[in-house]
Amino acid sequence: MSEIRKDPASRTWVVIAPGRSHRPLEFDEAGALEAAKPHIDPDCALCFGNESMTPPAVFELWPPSAPHGEARWFTRVVGNKYPALEPTIELVHFSSGDFYTGLSGVGAHEVIVETPFHGETLATMPLDSLRHLVRTYTERYRFWRNDRRIAYILIFKNWGQGAGASLTHSHSQLVATPIMPPRVSEEIDEARRYFRRTQNCIYCRQIDVELEAKPSRIVYVNDTFIVHTSYAARFPYEMRIVPRRHAASLDELSEAEMEGFADALGHMARALYHTLGDPPYNYLVHAAPLRTPGLVYYHWHIEVIPRLAQPAGFEWGSGIYIDTTAPEDAAAELSRGLAELEPMRRRRPPATRKRPAARPRKATR
Amino acid sequence: MSEIRKDPASRTWVVIAPGRSHRPLEFDEAGALEAAKPHIDPDCALCFGNESMTPPAVFELWPPSAPHGEARWFTRVVGNKYPALEPTIELVHFSSGDFYTGLSGVGAHEVIVETPFHGETLATMPLDSLRHLVRTYTERYRFWRNDRRIAYILIFKNWGQGAGASLTHSHSQLVATPIMPPRVSEEIDEARRYFRRTQNCIYCRQIDVELEAKPSRIVYVNDTFIVHTSYAARFPYEMRIVPRRHAASLDELSEAEMEGFADALGHMARALYHTLGDPPYNYLVHAAPLRTPGLVYYHWHIEVIPRLAQPAGFEWGSGIYIDTTAPEDAAAELSRGLAELEPMRRRRPPATRKRPAARPRKATR
Repeated sequence: MSEIRKDPASRTWVVIAPGRSHRPLEFDEAGALEAAKPHIDPDCALCFGNESMTPPAVFELWPPSAPHGEARWFTRVVGNKYPALEPTIELVHFSSGDFYTGLSGVGAHEVIVETPFHGETLATMPLDSLRHLVRTYTERYRFWRNDRRIAYILIFKNWGQGAGASLTHSHSQLVATPIMPPRVSEEIDEARRYFRRTQNCIYCRQIDVELEAKPSRIVYVNDTFIVHTSYAARFPYEMRIVPRRHAASLDELSEAEMEGFADALGHMARALYHTLGDPPYNYLVHAAPLRTPGLVYYHWHIEVIPRLAQPAGFEWGSGIYIDTTAPEDAAAELSRGLAELEPMRRRRPPATRKRPAARPRKATR
Repeated sequence: MSEIRKDPASRTWVVIAPGRSHRPLEFDEAGALEAAKPHIDPDCALCFGNESMTPPAVFELWPPSAPHGEARWFTRVVGNKYPALEPTIELVHFSSGDFYTGLSGVGAHEVIVETPFHGETLATMPLDSLRHLVRTYTERYRFWRNDRRIAYILIFKNWGQGAGASLTHSHSQLVATPIMPPRVSEEIDEARRYFRRTQNCIYCRQIDVELEAKPSRIVYVNDTFIVHTSYAARFPYEMRIVPRRHAASLDELSEAEMEGFADALGHMARALYHTLGDPPYNYLVHAAPLRTPGLVYYHWHIEVIPRLAQPAGFEWGSGIYIDTTAPEDAAAELSRGLAELEPMRRRRPPATRKRPAARPRKATR
């Protein structure tokens, strides 16, 4: 029997309909994590050594002491070659026929290169690399948050062609927009309503509920972050990554939380990789609007959307979703996948590309 | 330069970014409309003669006087074999952990078989068949609207695998739900706000604006309906079909409007077929909630979404869309396609499957 579930933190309704069946992809279990062989692809604009093939870097993270000639950058950020929004134009509001309104496409669209190597993925990266990535997210967030034309900064990742990625080299994107994303506005409206009624942050409460729920929807927990499937998941295996301490935005991360975030990100990616055979997926950072520090009722988090099902027009046109995998079953599978993986990871020989335990620094701003 | 546009009737924001390029599919122009050869496929459960392969019909439309043995049904409606919602269960509200809420999956999920023939499409159907389809929509709408457990009736169509269709025989679907679709609620909220401010229906006003706009977004107009691309189209070539007379719901159609609706539907389908080479598409009927007759501020309409672009996680997670085709250019292409087609259609020999000009009647309710 189907169940209709309401996401308490948005206007989303979901029909959980396991009868409409879903079968995860087959994959080569033994070799899964070894499949990706990091290398330099001479034709890839995002690989180390091919920097001249991209627009100039707006940010790079390097090991602190190694001379540039002997080291590689950890991460690199460049302007998108085909930007949806551009920083060089003026913010102009306009109206058409005294009815329609709009504004100029001002903003930013950046590509965050996550690794110098082709073939490396969030699921195979060492924790150090994930930590560099998290630092890059927060640095670029801080860079744009003071631009008065910008209302919101969206950091997201498309992994795999089925998730809309046009490049195979592992990368994230940042879009800075002069408008609020409606999905986030909707969450903020719901969170404000909940706060007025209960004096609590709905996400803080949700973390408590998730940690207690039976059957569980938890995929992974560390000291600072929780990874769980959504009660009202729109898509099979949809997950949330949520910081356990209340914070409105990702630029409020402590050092320990940066570490915990990197660790949670890696576990999320490995759970997908190992359980579903490296499926295409998207994730998006949802944070408070800019210039609202210490907002008490909104709590930043990440939505992770595996792209296993092809959503039809029903979803686009109604805002009601039909999910064929119960979130409780999805969580059980994903955390079982992680549990199977841990002994394998411990058995792995230490990484051959040993780098000094480096504190990153910025360059070429 | 990109433009950011707000849909006046919802919370949708769209970045119109033609620089991010889109190229319509190639197709065989001369033979386009002749390509589909209507026939009976012995393996297709939706073809005439194979009725035993589906769940029993809940509705059929037959020619009025011909004895059943010599005629074919015009349209046929059966329960979906893998229903997302079912009518046989009770409406139960539940709560989980004093935090999450939901209800039982009560409702209906029906398949509307649009034609007895395999290979026939909305783009190739004669006007008579389209009229039968429109009548079937309204009949099924009327059937479900009095069920007190049902809050909303969604009629929609997925055409082509890329649009989520799992059957190739031309069909629509009806889902009756105990909840309001959030996308429609959002439109109703905006329409109510606009009405309070101006004492006008926002859609009535929009029709006037569209009929005057330069450059035009009109694809087709008849006496009772208008087909146009959306100012803030989320997807390339996205269209709306809107009745010119104010009506909250599709069960308020007059006979002349049923005819006009069928005609508009055919023109929309032929415009897509001829201009873009039979792309996959979805459409959805947006109408007022049930049991709100004569609602002054909401105006029913159809959203048509061609599935040319693969939306990425950015769209799902933000509610901001990036459209690479300016709606004005899309409208020009689509209406040019229709203009090219009209002389061809007039040159065609009269349909060989000549049927009596029949007024449909219901059977097997």
